[in-house]
Amino acid sequence: MPFEHQRRVRFQDTDPAGIVFFANIFVYCHEAFEELLRDVGTPLDAIIASREQILPLAHAEADFKRPFRVGVLVTVRASVASVGERSFRMEYEMFDEAGSHLASAATVHVAVDPATGRSTAVSERLRIALAKHQVAR
Amino acid sequence: MPFEHQRRVRFQDTDPAGIVFFANIFVYCHEAFEELLRDVGTPLDAIIASREQILPLAHAEADFKRPFRVGVLVTVRASVASVGERSFRMEYEMFDEAGSHLASAATVHVAVDPATGRSTAVSERLRIALAKHQVAR
Amino acid sequence: MPFEHQRRVRFQDTDPAGIVFFANIFVYCHEAFEELLRDVGTPLDAIIASREQILPLAHAEADFKRPFRVGVLVTVRASVASVGERSFRMEYEMFDEAGSHLASAATVHVAVDPATGRSTAVSERLRIALAKHQVAR
Amino acid sequence: MPFEHQRRVRFQDTDPAGIVFFANIFVYCHEAFEELLRDVGTPLDAIIASREQILPLAHAEADFKRPFRVGVLVTVRASVASVGERSFRMEYEMFDEAGSHLASAATVHVAVDPATGRSTAVSERLRIALAKHQVAR
Repeated sequence: MPFEHQRRVRFQDTDPAGIVFFANIFVYCHEAFEELLRDVGTPLDAIIASREQILPLAHAEADFKRPFRVGVLVTVRASVASVGERSFRMEYEMFDEAGSHLASAATVHVAVDPATGRSTAVSERLRIALAKHQVAR
Repeated sequence: MPFEHQRRVRFQDTDPAGIVFFANIFVYCHEAFEELLRDVGTPLDAIIASREQILPLAHAEADFKRPFRVGVLVTVRASVASVGERSFRMEYEMFDEAGSHLASAATVHVAVDPATGRSTAVSERLRIALAKHQVAR
Repeated sequence: MPFEHQRRVRFQDTDPAGIVFFANIFVYCHEAFEELLRDVGTPLDAIIASREQILPLAHAEADFKRPFRVGVLVTVRASVASVGERSFRMEYEMFDEAGSHLASAATVHVAVDPATGRSTAVSERLRIALAKHQVAR
Repeated sequence: MPFEHQRRVRFQDTDPAGIVFFANIFVYCHEAFEELLRDVGTPLDAIIASREQILPLAHAEADFKRPFRVGVLVTVRASVASVGERSFRMEYEMFDEAGSHLASAATVHVAVDPATGRSTAVSERLRIALAKHQVAR
């Protein structure tokens, strides 16, 4: 099942054209990712603090369908699309209050050992946690 | 010929893992896009102020190869990959001072009439301006 | 009575030293200000859209007592300290989940006519709205 | 002598009212602070990496005189106002290309031992470095 995160479009997220600056839409996705991790019992701050692994991105992409306007309450539906040996793929669908589809996005995270800077296996506890929001294909 | 923009990685761009938060890398690309437009005589602020058209993104993607560390001077090489009737595609390659390839990115912008919110033809003066940094395929 | 807004410290708000970059603490205050305005029936987006007035800042200040750490749920207690003819002063107190005082801040907003760029009287409906969270001295 | 840093107002720094969101003006100040430290041979990234001390803010304040508009090249004049045993105060004056005074700001930084989280003496090499841009009173 996807995880849902709600986020108000803030004044400072938007630009002179009155719509959200595109890079901030990736911020919304990462917020949903942080909340999903918290929800499944492995908050990102705890993962970082444990020095076990960090989860930098190898890839990010998004298709923007409709403008995100200031004041709108956005629902980000986040799901785990796949989990590999050393990386995993997240997918995000974003909607406004009326249910209009605003954007789709995806991110690929790599498990990296902070001591060596090299990729490493996705930890067992993270693998179990991610499975809770993994969507069958 | 690609356009080159240099940008120092700032303290506030980075996260607790000590590397640039991925969404900020898209910000670096957009800065290069803004400087390219300024360089070819059609600054984005002038385009917006003219109310002729705005240039929201329909798509963005990036592959992150190496971490962007605080203090590094990043070179963003921006080029116009293609210009269609109502949209155009920008491509970005990012390097550190030693010439290491840090990331690749691309953005697709759509010309939109701010009065109607609908897509419109890329203006003639913007088309001419973009041609200066269009890269042959 | 002060207005309360809660906000999780996000990964991207923090810097390599592991604590929130100070400018983001002002962002948290402005979020509380936006939510307060929404709560009293005059959302900032509606004020801006009406072209009646904009509310830029003339002054901002903050004292930072304790670090804001990633993952912490911050409570921002916002109150209207005073409302003058053409400006008003907001005050903010920020606490972590344990009730520790993290920071104090204040902002002074000026009512400006967007057509002329000059200061103007705080609108009657905004004055009434702000009174709901004005704190007696 | 003050240190001068120049910074273009970016599209994404501005809000729907078309001017820079106030918290970003503090970002401009911190950029000038980072460049000043780099200029005097003690880059902030090197200070952080040395684990000798971190320099979080105890206080920040700003007076905003005129709007910062998108596309404007801002000059930030940064100076060291005073250096105490465990803290120092920076002052910033900001101007547009025509020399109009846009804003004044100040920040107080405390030297903190990252191992204990407690304040510590400003390091000798930082004290010497800051003296180069200290302004007599």
